[in-house]
Amino acid sequence: MTKIILITGGQRSGKSRFAQELALKLSANPVYLATSRIWDDEHRQRIVRHQNDRGPEWTNIEEEKHLSKHSLEDKIVLIDCVTLWLTNFFFDNKSDIDQSLLEAKEEFNNLIQQDTTFIFVTNEIGLGGMPENDLQRKFTDLQGWMNQYIAQKADEVFLMVSGIQLKIK
Amino acid sequence: MTKIILITGGQRSGKSRFAQELALKLSANPVYLATSRIWDDEHRQRIVRHQNDRGPEWTNIEEEKHLSKHSLEDKIVLIDCVTLWLTNFFFDNKSDIDQSLLEAKEEFNNLIQQDTTFIFVTNEIGLGGMPENDLQRKFTDLQGWMNQYIAQKADEVFLMVSGIQLKIK
Amino acid sequence: MTKIILITGGQRSGKSRFAQELALKLSANPVYLATSRIWDDEHRQRIVRHQNDRGPEWTNIEEEKHLSKHSLEDKIVLIDCVTLWLTNFFFDNKSDIDQSLLEAKEEFNNLIQQDTTFIFVTNEIGLGGMPENDLQRKFTDLQGWMNQYIAQKADEVFLMVSGIQLKIK
Repeated sequence: MTKIILITGGQRSGKSRFAQELALKLSANPVYLATSRIWDDEHRQRIVRHQNDRGPEWTNIEEEKHLSKHSLEDKIVLIDCVTLWLTNFFFDNKSDIDQSLLEAKEEFNNLIQQDTTFIFVTNEIGLGGMPENDLQRKFTDLQGWMNQYIAQKADEVFLMVSGIQLKIK
Repeated sequence: MTKIILITGGQRSGKSRFAQELALKLSANPVYLATSRIWDDEHRQRIVRHQNDRGPEWTNIEEEKHLSKHSLEDKIVLIDCVTLWLTNFFFDNKSDIDQSLLEAKEEFNNLIQQDTTFIFVTNEIGLGGMPENDLQRKFTDLQGWMNQYIAQKADEVFLMVSGIQLKIK
Repeated sequence: MTKIILITGGQRSGKSRFAQELALKLSANPVYLATSRIWDDEHRQRIVRHQNDRGPEWTNIEEEKHLSKHSLEDKIVLIDCVTLWLTNFFFDNKSDIDQSLLEAKEEFNNLIQQDTTFIFVTNEIGLGGMPENDLQRKFTDLQGWMNQYIAQKADEVFLMVSGIQLKIK
């Protein structure tokens, strides 16, 4: 059975920590799906440090866009995070929101065909007033629409505030 | 009897969608009170497109400031949105917050004399740290004070997060 | 017995008002611990005005960093606010987050040794997307980590939205 959990919140609100604790409660060997694009060697080294920090119980996958090509049946999978993943579509599509949203939704829909428990970490970024920067304004739209899309299909949604989880669905 | 419902949240959090669904649950013929100032022909055309998108069951009123001059007794009225409405006071008063707040509160108090169900859509914009831009900092104060004023008089208040409504009053 | 209450929220969300009402419910003579650094005479005069506004039932203490040096046993103490207090560590440590966090946590831990009811007011500032300004990005990290630290030790945590308190712990 597919199960979808969405964890949203602001910068440094404890989203990833809560998501990792949740994954480890559900499985002794969860999968960590990291979506950040790797820009250089220094970034690569930081990713290895993060993997070591999390510990050997995790299976680590790095996948900047095509989440659904990985076989994840019956696993507990933590996707960290939707924001970085969307950034990659946004960048590759030269800031075209409609095309980015289309591709991300399609990828998401393919992914959730699997009988897997998915824990998505995302950012809530639209609560600071209209950004002055045009790109940031567009990305805030993209992020908001995708968050709504995932939350609507999710079985459970949590909002993190100062490290406290608030179950909102 | 007057009833006041406030729906607040960030950019692209699903506020307007939720407000419209709520209005259509309460009435087959709700009123849409649009508060955006119309700047040019292109804007005018976009407004007509939005009206067509919403469908023929809605009565559309465009009113950038003087909400209370419309007779709305016994209707279900969606005001979309408080932020644009406040922007008009803020602009006309040359960014004077005190005067803008005074006029907006007076207009609000006149409006709610009517036996109407009001659904106000507003933005929660103070959660992104202090804006660097002085005008935006002032407007965030104005928005926050007016939101508090409406929420205090409201029968129900909802916070939207990733498209999920959270009843907070 | 020590009791810790944390009140968080955005700019103009009604945090201080709610905190003051709460303190006055718990004591006829609460203590107001103001953490803002005083920059000039105009600022000094504004602080005196605020003290007069709050009224004679409050004992006022101004303390920009070393909260724990004050003897507050058996009192109801409102700390307003964590954000300004952290700003002082951040400034004095030349924007070094690690050192600022270390000093603030140590000061916090010393403070809560006393059998006192502490009401901390703080700001939720990470929900507006990534700040473009590097200093603001760093401070948002510092604020988020300290909020998590206090919330984790708190007996009660409230999130303020449009003046409405939402108990999240």
